[in-house]
Amino acid sequence: MTFEYLQDPGHGPRWHGVLPGRPEAFFLKRGDGEHAKLFGDLFTVLLSGDETEGQFGIITCDCPAGDIIPTHSHAATHETFYIVDGKVRVFVESPDGQRSSRLLEPGDFGFVPAGLAHAYRVEAPTRMLGVLSGGFERFFQRMGTPTDTADPGQPPFIPELDRIMAAGQQHGTRFFPDFTWPDA
Amino acid sequence: MTFEYLQDPGHGPRWHGVLPGRPEAFFLKRGDGEHAKLFGDLFTVLLSGDETEGQFGIITCDCPAGDIIPTHSHAATHETFYIVDGKVRVFVESPDGQRSSRLLEPGDFGFVPAGLAHAYRVEAPTRMLGVLSGGFERFFQRMGTPTDTADPGQPPFIPELDRIMAAGQQHGTRFFPDFTWPDA
Repeated sequence: MTFEYLQDPGHGPRWHGVLPGRPEAFFLKRGDGEHAKLFGDLFTVLLSGDETEGQFGIITCDCPAGDIIPTHSHAATHETFYIVDGKVRVFVESPDGQRSSRLLEPGDFGFVPAGLAHAYRVEAPTRMLGVLSGGFERFFQRMGTPTDTADPGQPPFIPELDRIMAAGQQHGTRFFPDFTWPDA
Repeated sequence: MTFEYLQDPGHGPRWHGVLPGRPEAFFLKRGDGEHAKLFGDLFTVLLSGDETEGQFGIITCDCPAGDIIPTHSHAATHETFYIVDGKVRVFVESPDGQRSSRLLEPGDFGFVPAGLAHAYRVEAPTRMLGVLSGGFERFFQRMGTPTDTADPGQPPFIPELDRIMAAGQQHGTRFFPDFTWPDA
């Protein structure tokens, strides 16, 4: 349970170098990748924009059930949800202002394009896979903290507000704290 | 079991319009999407480059165990393998000519960048998810044939050689029929 590279970035994390950082073939065993803890969730980067000429990145998220995450939008990031295990309700506002949601279960898929306000709520312990416009996969590492372990028992990482805002700004993400959803 | 839109393209398939065709939010239930049959495999497009400004597309492939598929390379397409269920051995040649393979099992991940010769062999009934540079997801529809059903019992679709070559040419794909792999 070590977050010591926050104090000493030269020290780790051990996953540094697991992804090649350029368009080169590689393989990962289940559970491998670049781990970061953010609140109670474990985000794992399987592929980054560095390998795809900026086209896309891929993450998994292993998350316990929890509260709805704050509503936000991404200026330039398309985002997908593919449920491997579990249940996630995705909330999205359409360009005409309609707010709706869909409960996603294993095998279900959701797409939220750049610019739309959205949120989600994990309703059962979940593994989901997300594909993101290249570069956005680092958002979760910047808002959260790198970790070497995929152990679900590790403590949550609660970022300070300025860390949240800095990560948001770096990745073109706006938060809407007063947003409400009819079925949340 | 209807392929009649091959004769009458104005007729179907019924999945036409399931994807919005522009960057707009949408959701799919497991099993929904644009289905195409190619040999014994069912390819389903969950997302296309039309929704992502050309960045990426997403497919699932439901496939029985089978022979190694012919070795090929894509001029401009990055390709990923994420195993949801099953077992797939991915073969890839590195730029220095080394040929190797990796057996992927559920949760495992593989990346093959543009330009590298590669192949794969499904070693158990498999569902895998693939992310591809935007536009390449149509390759499987062009080489295979659209179908309305996800029924695994539908007959295989065996394309003629000229259909294979035309789809390959349209999507920057070269085939290497005489290629051999040390562990195939």
